Amino acid sequence: MLQGHQTWIFPSQPVIASAASVVGPFEGKGPLARDFDLIHGDTWIGQDSWEKAEKRLLEDACEKAIEKAGLEKEQIQFFIGGDLMSQLISSNFAARTLAVPFLGVFGACSTSMEGLALAAQLVDSGNAHTVLCGTSSHNSSAEKTFRYPTEYGGQKPPTAQWTVTGAGAAIIQSGQKAVSNTGLHITSCTIGRVVDMGITDPFNMGGAMAPAAVDTIEAHFRDLRVSFADYDLIVTGDLGRVGYRIAYDLMKKHGLDVSEDKFQDCGILMYGDHPEVLAGGSGAACSAAVTYGHLFKGMMEGRWRKIMVAATGALLSPITVQQKESIPCICHAVVIESRGG
Amino acid sequence: MLQGHQTWIFPSQPVIASAASVVGPFEGKGPLARDFDLIHGDTWIGQDSWEKAEKRLLEDACEKAIEKAGLEKEQIQFFIGGDLMSQLISSNFAARTLAVPFLGVFGACSTSMEGLALAAQLVDSGNAHTVLCGTSSHNSSAEKTFRYPTEYGGQKPPTAQWTVTGAGAAIIQSGQKAVSNTGLHITSCTIGRVVDMGITDPFNMGGAMAPAAVDTIEAHFRDLRVSFADYDLIVTGDLGRVGYRIAYDLMKKHGLDVSEDKFQDCGILMYGDHPEVLAGGSGAACSAAVTYGHLFKGMMEGRWRKIMVAATGALLSPITVQQKESIPCICHAVVIESRGG
Repeated sequence: MLQGHQTWIFPSQPVIASAASVVGPFEGKGPLARDFDLIHGDTWIGQDSWEKAEKRLLEDACEKAIEKAGLEKEQIQFFIGGDLMSQLISSNFAARTLAVPFLGVFGACSTSMEGLALAAQLVDSGNAHTVLCGTSSHNSSAEKTFRYPTEYGGQKPPTAQWTVTGAGAAIIQSGQKAVSNTGLHITSCTIGRVVDMGITDPFNMGGAMAPAAVDTIEAHFRDLRVSFADYDLIVTGDLGRVGYRIAYDLMKKHGLDVSEDKFQDCGILMYGDHPEVLAGGSGAACSAAVTYGHLFKGMMEGRWRKIMVAATGALLSPITVQQKESIPCICHAVVIESRGG
Repeated sequence: MLQGHQTWIFPSQPVIASAASVVGPFEGKGPLARDFDLIHGDTWIGQDSWEKAEKRLLEDACEKAIEKAGLEKEQIQFFIGGDLMSQLISSNFAARTLAVPFLGVFGACSTSMEGLALAAQLVDSGNAHTVLCGTSSHNSSAEKTFRYPTEYGGQKPPTAQWTVTGAGAAIIQSGQKAVSNTGLHITSCTIGRVVDMGITDPFNMGGAMAPAAVDTIEAHFRDLRVSFADYDLIVTGDLGRVGYRIAYDLMKKHGLDVSEDKFQDCGILMYGDHPEVLAGGSGAACSAAVTYGHLFKGMMEGRWRKIMVAATGALLSPITVQQKESIPCICHAVVIESRGG
């Protein structure tokens, strides 16, 4: 049910039957290591190309989510997937493996929450009772696509971010069908608009995306007449340290009751203070792995009862950068509430 | 409402408030010329790159659809868009211009019907009352991405297809909100699975996609217990002559009552017998422009009362071809019925 201009509330409160997160070795040495379901010891994930490795990560996350829900692959009614690769190849090939009806979606790094929002919407509307959604990214396939192959050893400015090698998947079910119960429900989501403040530097995606994050968070507050006080935690997808600061200051300036306690960013949470990641983590797997691993685990343990994940995406391509276009950005937000305990 | 495994029926029968089709000069000389809303005289569409030209085509189609529905841009609640470009840049930049909540989708050339299906689903479920969907492709931007820049003058085998330069957009509304009435309603859709028969030749996409088209058409028949007899016309997206023949023979072999009268292909309809297009038209704009131009016009004139558009997509990328992967394909189908006359 649409409330306000861009927020859907879900009266049936679709259930998160399970969620799984899979990461590479570098992410597995970070502060969230014990929150992930699977940590690969090698960035090739047993494959012979970075792209195949990324596909394998997504397949791993989907398999794990299906297993954790106690379901068989055949019980998945729809798969909603997307990723950063050109023509979404990780998701297309994972969808071939799954062999269930498939909807490809793209919102760059916001794909995680675009997929989760649509999955919840399909379940809430009664058009499905069991939907799998997932996304992945790989540091080396993303560097190769958007910057330079890592083997070139190119130098980066401190505003640059580190694409997460990993994947996340979740199974959303109707209350009647839920086979497993995490106690987590999706209660609303806000679909973002494209916001472009004229930034052209692909080494400062956090700065480019910050206004889109603020636009969607404020739209959500307006649509539902809520504020930071109504949430235990609001987490952006991958603003990193630079974008986080811009978003924080922008919300302060707009009079919101933002605090560092209640407003965090998956790109900062993923790696902590590791200097190699520069401004922080990014990639579609950043918000997916942090949400489906760290945040959901924290909610199940009772740390937070109501959170909003506002995943940000920079909708650029190598061609738009070469053609000197600025970077259009978007942010899709999903609200998750714990009914357990 | 889900019926069978992969078909949604829409009890509210969302209204097609308007639809618009825009094409380039070559398409404008084809047999469907008088069915299009706008024919550009020059493939650059007044831009300085093929990618910007493709974006402009999509913007034109969206503007035209909004104008034909008698709406203002601000009355569009959601825009669902996607295209063949890496990271969907045509749609992202068109969404920046529209400045309304945006969902990016990708199903290669099936994006047209993926978008239309989701738009109808959002309206039918009451999560929106006015949704715009659209897609575009450009011969030169697609050739550059998937084959060679046209300026290279590369030779092609007779199984190759010609990417349509054009765009199509439609506005879907709830019955209560419909401002304009074409008399056309969306009554059901079938979401496809990925089908891959092992074809690796990107110059034979029709052959690769044909089994996906048959898979979705048969799934639709099974889910709704219907057959060719229940439709005035079933049209595939862009199988071209080679893929059409394979799909036709496959359906005959499976015992379906297929006939050349009732089963057609947008890729053949678009250019007729023009030798330069080899096996026929392709691209996301092929099914979009033919459906929103030619087919909808024919329905409004009473030529057909109930049609199914089964748009096919080859989910490959330049990287998957280089890495010698086969081509995963998909097909999404939408049923449109005329209530006019």
